[in-house]
Amino acid sequence: MAALRSYVNGEWHVPTESGVPLHDAVTGDEVAAVSSAGIDMASVLDYGRAVGGPALGELTFHQRAALLKTLASYLREHREELYALSARTGSTLGDSKFDIDGGIGVLFAYSSKGRREMPAGHVYVDGGTEALSREGTFLGQHICTPMQGVAVQINAFNFPVWGPLEKFAPAFIAGMPTLIKPASQTAYLTHRLVELMVGSGLLPEGSLQLVCGSSGDLLDHLTDQDVVAFTGSASTGQRLRAHPAVVANSVRFGVEADSLNCSILGPDAVKGTDEFDLFVKQLVTEMTVKAGQKCTAIRRAIVPKSSMDDVIEAASARLSKVTVGHPNSDVRMGALASLEQREEVRRSLKALLEAGTLAYGDPEQVELVDAEAEKGAFVSPMLVRCDDPEQPQPHEVEAFGPVSTVMPYETAEQAVDLARRGLGSLAGSVVTDDTDFARTVVLGAASRHGRLLVLNRHDAKESTGHGSPMPQLVHGGPGRAGGGEEMGGVRGILHHMQRTAVQGTPDVLTAVTGQWVTGAARTETDEHPFRKHLEELRVGDTVVAGPRTVTAEDVEHFAEFTGDTFYAHTDEEAARANPFFEGLVAHGYLVVSLAAGLFVEPAPGPVLANYGLENLRFLTPTYPGDELTVTLTAKRLTPRHGADYGEVRWDADVTNAAGDSVAKYDVLTLVAKRETESDEAVQA
Amino acid sequence: MAALRSYVNGEWHVPTESGVPLHDAVTGDEVAAVSSAGIDMASVLDYGRAVGGPALGELTFHQRAALLKTLASYLREHREELYALSARTGSTLGDSKFDIDGGIGVLFAYSSKGRREMPAGHVYVDGGTEALSREGTFLGQHICTPMQGVAVQINAFNFPVWGPLEKFAPAFIAGMPTLIKPASQTAYLTHRLVELMVGSGLLPEGSLQLVCGSSGDLLDHLTDQDVVAFTGSASTGQRLRAHPAVVANSVRFGVEADSLNCSILGPDAVKGTDEFDLFVKQLVTEMTVKAGQKCTAIRRAIVPKSSMDDVIEAASARLSKVTVGHPNSDVRMGALASLEQREEVRRSLKALLEAGTLAYGDPEQVELVDAEAEKGAFVSPMLVRCDDPEQPQPHEVEAFGPVSTVMPYETAEQAVDLARRGLGSLAGSVVTDDTDFARTVVLGAASRHGRLLVLNRHDAKESTGHGSPMPQLVHGGPGRAGGGEEMGGVRGILHHMQRTAVQGTPDVLTAVTGQWVTGAARTETDEHPFRKHLEELRVGDTVVAGPRTVTAEDVEHFAEFTGDTFYAHTDEEAARANPFFEGLVAHGYLVVSLAAGLFVEPAPGPVLANYGLENLRFLTPTYPGDELTVTLTAKRLTPRHGADYGEVRWDADVTNAAGDSVAKYDVLTLVAKRETESDEAVQA
Repeated sequence: MAALRSYVNGEWHVPTESGVPLHDAVTGDEVAAVSSAGIDMASVLDYGRAVGGPALGELTFHQRAALLKTLASYLREHREELYALSARTGSTLGDSKFDIDGGIGVLFAYSSKGRREMPAGHVYVDGGTEALSREGTFLGQHICTPMQGVAVQINAFNFPVWGPLEKFAPAFIAGMPTLIKPASQTAYLTHRLVELMVGSGLLPEGSLQLVCGSSGDLLDHLTDQDVVAFTGSASTGQRLRAHPAVVANSVRFGVEADSLNCSILGPDAVKGTDEFDLFVKQLVTEMTVKAGQKCTAIRRAIVPKSSMDDVIEAASARLSKVTVGHPNSDVRMGALASLEQREEVRRSLKALLEAGTLAYGDPEQVELVDAEAEKGAFVSPMLVRCDDPEQPQPHEVEAFGPVSTVMPYETAEQAVDLARRGLGSLAGSVVTDDTDFARTVVLGAASRHGRLLVLNRHDAKESTGHGSPMPQLVHGGPGRAGGGEEMGGVRGILHHMQRTAVQGTPDVLTAVTGQWVTGAARTETDEHPFRKHLEELRVGDTVVAGPRTVTAEDVEHFAEFTGDTFYAHTDEEAARANPFFEGLVAHGYLVVSLAAGLFVEPAPGPVLANYGLENLRFLTPTYPGDELTVTLTAKRLTPRHGADYGEVRWDADVTNAAGDSVAKYDVLTLVAKRETESDEAVQA
Repeated sequence: MAALRSYVNGEWHVPTESGVPLHDAVTGDEVAAVSSAGIDMASVLDYGRAVGGPALGELTFHQRAALLKTLASYLREHREELYALSARTGSTLGDSKFDIDGGIGVLFAYSSKGRREMPAGHVYVDGGTEALSREGTFLGQHICTPMQGVAVQINAFNFPVWGPLEKFAPAFIAGMPTLIKPASQTAYLTHRLVELMVGSGLLPEGSLQLVCGSSGDLLDHLTDQDVVAFTGSASTGQRLRAHPAVVANSVRFGVEADSLNCSILGPDAVKGTDEFDLFVKQLVTEMTVKAGQKCTAIRRAIVPKSSMDDVIEAASARLSKVTVGHPNSDVRMGALASLEQREEVRRSLKALLEAGTLAYGDPEQVELVDAEAEKGAFVSPMLVRCDDPEQPQPHEVEAFGPVSTVMPYETAEQAVDLARRGLGSLAGSVVTDDTDFARTVVLGAASRHGRLLVLNRHDAKESTGHGSPMPQLVHGGPGRAGGGEEMGGVRGILHHMQRTAVQGTPDVLTAVTGQWVTGAARTETDEHPFRKHLEELRVGDTVVAGPRTVTAEDVEHFAEFTGDTFYAHTDEEAARANPFFEGLVAHGYLVVSLAAGLFVEPAPGPVLANYGLENLRFLTPTYPGDELTVTLTAKRLTPRHGADYGEVRWDADVTNAAGDSVAKYDVLTLVAKRETESDEAVQA
């Protein structure tokens, strides 16, 4: 069997030795061999930094996001062959979809986040400007720029597709090249994934590399600009995190390790309720999907003492319907990834049984469909009953297979305490229709959880499930779970960027961020900026309009016309009694309406619509007789990829005759491009 | 000399041994002795977790912020005695103010941030809700809750007051108890600071502890819920970060190590320009404040090759005016913290001189005012000239004293490259009036810097300076600087909290966050919610008002009245040609004005003012004849500490007869409390 190739330094590398054989989880046949012999790890990292980083740097966040979407579509077209290969890892079709469709889904989600939540340029602006001076000549602004190294991912065997893709997507949007190091056991599936990605021709040169086999001395060559994301066992994670080069260079090292995730049944959810059924169903699902080889799977089912028997009975009944066997047959559960994994599960079960009894299943025996127990890594689902939750084992021993322990609690406080004994988990769930109980458990357990799901009859139909990390939400957990954090939308992108506080004048901050900052130069031109197409507009383009005097009649009329007869606009005496006003005041809505009347350019032109307003603050009351002037300045330009228009955010500052700001806000408009999208050379 | 006491387990602990003597930096006299003998470190941590955490947990973010302000005022009243003690560390009065006033300033700044940017309750809501389902029954929301451990700070000797306070403030607001472990050399000043803090009687029990002397086996007892913030040498930071308990429990371990910070002179800033003078002045300031013992000080002055001689000449002239001597005399520069530090500086200088020549100063000789060279740790400021910036020493060797190296560059790219050779810095600066050059350097160097300052004639008067970390901005840097991040406003608070993704129904998220989430239950009562005082209002309180028909006459009249005659409101044919409209549309401003007319309650009552609007989006066009209804729901209640009112954020949803949302936005109002503040038992 030929050894898997690696994709390094822009080419496919054939190992210089035959490699370690990898076996089909179901049949025991050799699938491939794996070795990284002959790869110069230092040069692989250098290539990523020297070629991949700059190539990605040529593209804006939006262009990278668009590429990601095209790549996702391409992979979706080829998923059938990934499914087929995935079956050899022991996965049923359902398991494979969880891994493969899940991974492709992350690409789509990040493409969407990248276009909607990242700017059109190369610099991410983090938070607002910070006032550091009285006169406003000196401000602070945090920006994020891509780390100029390689995003190294060291993956676990259980998600050979989702694992690499959920780490790749945020790095790619950030602008960091990726190096994938898959776990050997299932590397052949990741290898095929990367063949497809490279074969798509979509990726900038150097933006993706793959090392199959041992990582060799890879870590020795890490610098402060590299980022490592590790998924796997806690012990390996700890060893790598303490690696001298990692420590010496303060390398960002994210660890996502398996954890002893809990699911808590509410005291309201007795047998016969929807929540009881949902709890049991979810427990069995989490035990059997991927044969329980999910770092988010439920290991600890924490249930009211009075429901112990009911839960075990109902779960056992469901488990008895779980068919096990060849993933290509119509079974509910496939095999573990390897015979070694099965041995590991049996060992862990033995430890768990020191604190409990086996309520369902048999570690040595399982009825199989179309498969042979001697060749494939099959095991029965197993439920452990532990009546004394003070025992340490269920909170410490993780059997990485279809194994869960059911244990009792008596009070909400005890349920929280037991949840926390996992000492840091990726995911937990509470199944209850009692909102107070949900609140107590969530707030009590939160500081030891990366994610907590509350399941009940109202969200069950749409729930994405206890075990499913979502690209929009953070994935990771403190303590035993490794202390890492992945995904979570833009948060995951920022893990690949350096945050820098920039201090300077408004003009300097405008130049650095590409966004107009209050106090920076304004450009007033003869042409009204609403007459400019997106390509012609520049941040800082300004129109000053007015003044218009607001009369007592205006206020009176506006009150009558709109029905907004709030006393401050209609009753002089009452208005005076208000702590903020000296007499009748104009409506805030009147002020912004009049301001629009001043700055608007009525004839058809590039400005298509005002789609919203942000950060409106009324700063000074407007009294009858006050003259209003408005200054409107182009603040941020966001061409929309694939559309004939883009978003333009304007800074609006309405001032009175004394020069005081009456109202400040951002006006959001859609502005047409001069060139329609089809005329452009659209990236990807 | 009595050994300094520690403050642990709620009481002052006298060491069980005499301790290591500490010496006055100026006179060499013994100031104090230090030892942690007899302290049971495990119990200290346990006490913080068991007593301090819960005591802080009783308070809201705003209550903690208010306490911080009172504490800051208290310390300000006692600063004179801190100045006096500070002189014994070798600090001039200016140096002492930098440390002491700077630290007190961080408390004030965090108090302000805590009240303005944190919610009134106990849970920080991080980002918006994430849609995870089509029907909206299942949503995601990130929350942050305090870590349930101790914030351990291991401080450096150079800022005995600012160092502890800048770490304490964000931990305190977050709700984490602090344990301060000062560097022994200047522990007597931190000791006095903590005496004052404890003596103030303001701090909740267990929220602050102090261990003077060795940390002993402290780190062995860390758990996943503790947080460590270390400031000091890179080598110690690395050793502690790799500590087995830190690694095994994924303890958050922030390191802030000294770095080889650079300051770059722009090519425009030739001799005779304001920027040239500013550069030289800033360089000399950074060399001499705290006798150069600042982790943010300029170590590398990177100047145009053609300006090398001019810079060295001008800097030398300025340095020659720097008086050195007893800090209590009117000198510009005091002493290093100890004789050992002076030896260390001399050693480092020797290494630097392998790559350059001494352009100013003498490591062995310095003229002193009112002090003796044999007893005090005095040293002359020293400027090294390095004409070959490709040499490694100036980019690697840090002389932690009044020492900087001047080196040349020829192109902007080379300037960026040299800046990056620091391999990770806390702070850098660019002195230029050329915005393009500033932009090139900032964006090129950003990924290796925590903070970058652009100085020129326009911001010089208000600039806070290269070497001053600001509480609003992050302090820390990648790589050599340790990879940590402190302060940065709310960011620093969140370093002491766990982010958790919560998934559930809108009602569950509302219960968990205390903020009304779209889709959650609304409560319509007979009483209009605008008639309720802050104490009576509940999130979810709702008023539904309308409908009102928008007529063609309304639109025509509004256009005429406001002057907003944009064609989409006035020209049927042109409106039809717009890609988003099917004909004449009502103004967005008209829609929100009419909505206010519907929901407002005109008579005087608890609602005092509408002070703004957020997140307004126009979602569906309104055509003449459409009927508008508005649903207004109390979303977030923020009682303002020390005021008779608070902020109430309302969710506004304007719908048409078809039930489509026409506009969605948040209305911001000020609502009176029923009880005036003076009636309440005001915390602190």
